[in-house]
Amino acid sequence: MLKYFYAPNACSLGPHIALAEAGAAFEAVRLDLKAGDQRKPEYLAVNPKGRVPALVTQQGTLTECVVILGWVAQTYPDAHLKPDGDFFAFSEMQTFNLYLATTVHIAFAHLFRAERWADSEAAKAEMRAKVPSVLAQLFKLIEDRLSDGRSWVCGDRYTVADPYLYVFARWLERDGAGGSAAMPLTRAHRARMQERPAVKKILAAEGIAPV
Amino acid sequence: MLKYFYAPNACSLGPHIALAEAGAAFEAVRLDLKAGDQRKPEYLAVNPKGRVPALVTQQGTLTECVVILGWVAQTYPDAHLKPDGDFFAFSEMQTFNLYLATTVHIAFAHLFRAERWADSEAAKAEMRAKVPSVLAQLFKLIEDRLSDGRSWVCGDRYTVADPYLYVFARWLERDGAGGSAAMPLTRAHRARMQERPAVKKILAAEGIAPV
Repeated sequence: MLKYFYAPNACSLGPHIALAEAGAAFEAVRLDLKAGDQRKPEYLAVNPKGRVPALVTQQGTLTECVVILGWVAQTYPDAHLKPDGDFFAFSEMQTFNLYLATTVHIAFAHLFRAERWADSEAAKAEMRAKVPSVLAQLFKLIEDRLSDGRSWVCGDRYTVADPYLYVFARWLERDGAGGSAAMPLTRAHRARMQERPAVKKILAAEGIAPV
Repeated sequence: MLKYFYAPNACSLGPHIALAEAGAAFEAVRLDLKAGDQRKPEYLAVNPKGRVPALVTQQGTLTECVVILGWVAQTYPDAHLKPDGDFFAFSEMQTFNLYLATTVHIAFAHLFRAERWADSEAAKAEMRAKVPSVLAQLFKLIEDRLSDGRSWVCGDRYTVADPYLYVFARWLERDGAGGSAAMPLTRAHRARMQERPAVKKILAAEGIAPV
């Protein structure tokens, strides 16, 4: 059986929901990041990067949200969690997911993990203060994509890109992120997500509330 | 025919080499980032993110290095640019590529593009100064991976992960990055890359020298 290492309300929420949507049989293992579980030897043996998520399969371990999301979409075809079509259509979905990983998540990381890139309190405070304006800019592209009336990131078909976007739509409401008042389509997407049984189930499993 | 938008010595070098290794027929279009080509309306119509690379195909446009690398590996199977095996093996390669995109590239971006995350000269200088120690830490995992004597990122098989690693192995020698003295296996990989005809061809096409 798959084993999935996550932390509540971390980016790992996206693949966690995707696994549930796929109907995958998996054991979820919770890490407490504040207690430093991710830096303990037993977890570093699973993922030397010391970050969540990690998915242990019979073939080996995968890390990085975008990779796990893609693997779930390809491995459970009956769940229809990727766009119809060939590898181009899959790649177009992954382009969106990469934008979340390399740009949107990184912007949030300057709020939550500023110590990765500077040491002084002044520099860290300055990075944190800039985050809302950066996010406002980055979410314009997401609002543009949703502006044609589509229900989901890839159109009418719900895919693994949707739970991943949901992670960051939640984070917009965290202290210092600036809120989602200027992102009405992202908010509506978030509300649609929270109606899905798999989302309700995983929020309960992680012990976190809808936003 | 494919159209590939790149900037010399940018991260777009990785997929540029991969396209050549695949034997793909493509037209390369050079952007001058210092002149702001990436923010001109004609390029924003191709890639609204205003960054390189972008690959225009008959089916539409892909952006993000990891996506383009994966698409090239899947689309030109005769070039054998991905590991043997099923989608898990492909995903394991992409886990490495994601690490480069979300962690290694981002560390370099604090040297080259500090203005994305702070405005004051003091904060930007502090971020830049921290980059060499961050990179030294991040490349330990890469050195560990190469330490079993493998020639390439995924073992004996050269894959699209190799030209992508090569980008960052080059960037280690850029001003302020700290050099590669502590990364002997990455240096040896870089030297192997520079012996490949496709790499020589693309370095010449981009107008950049081996390092």
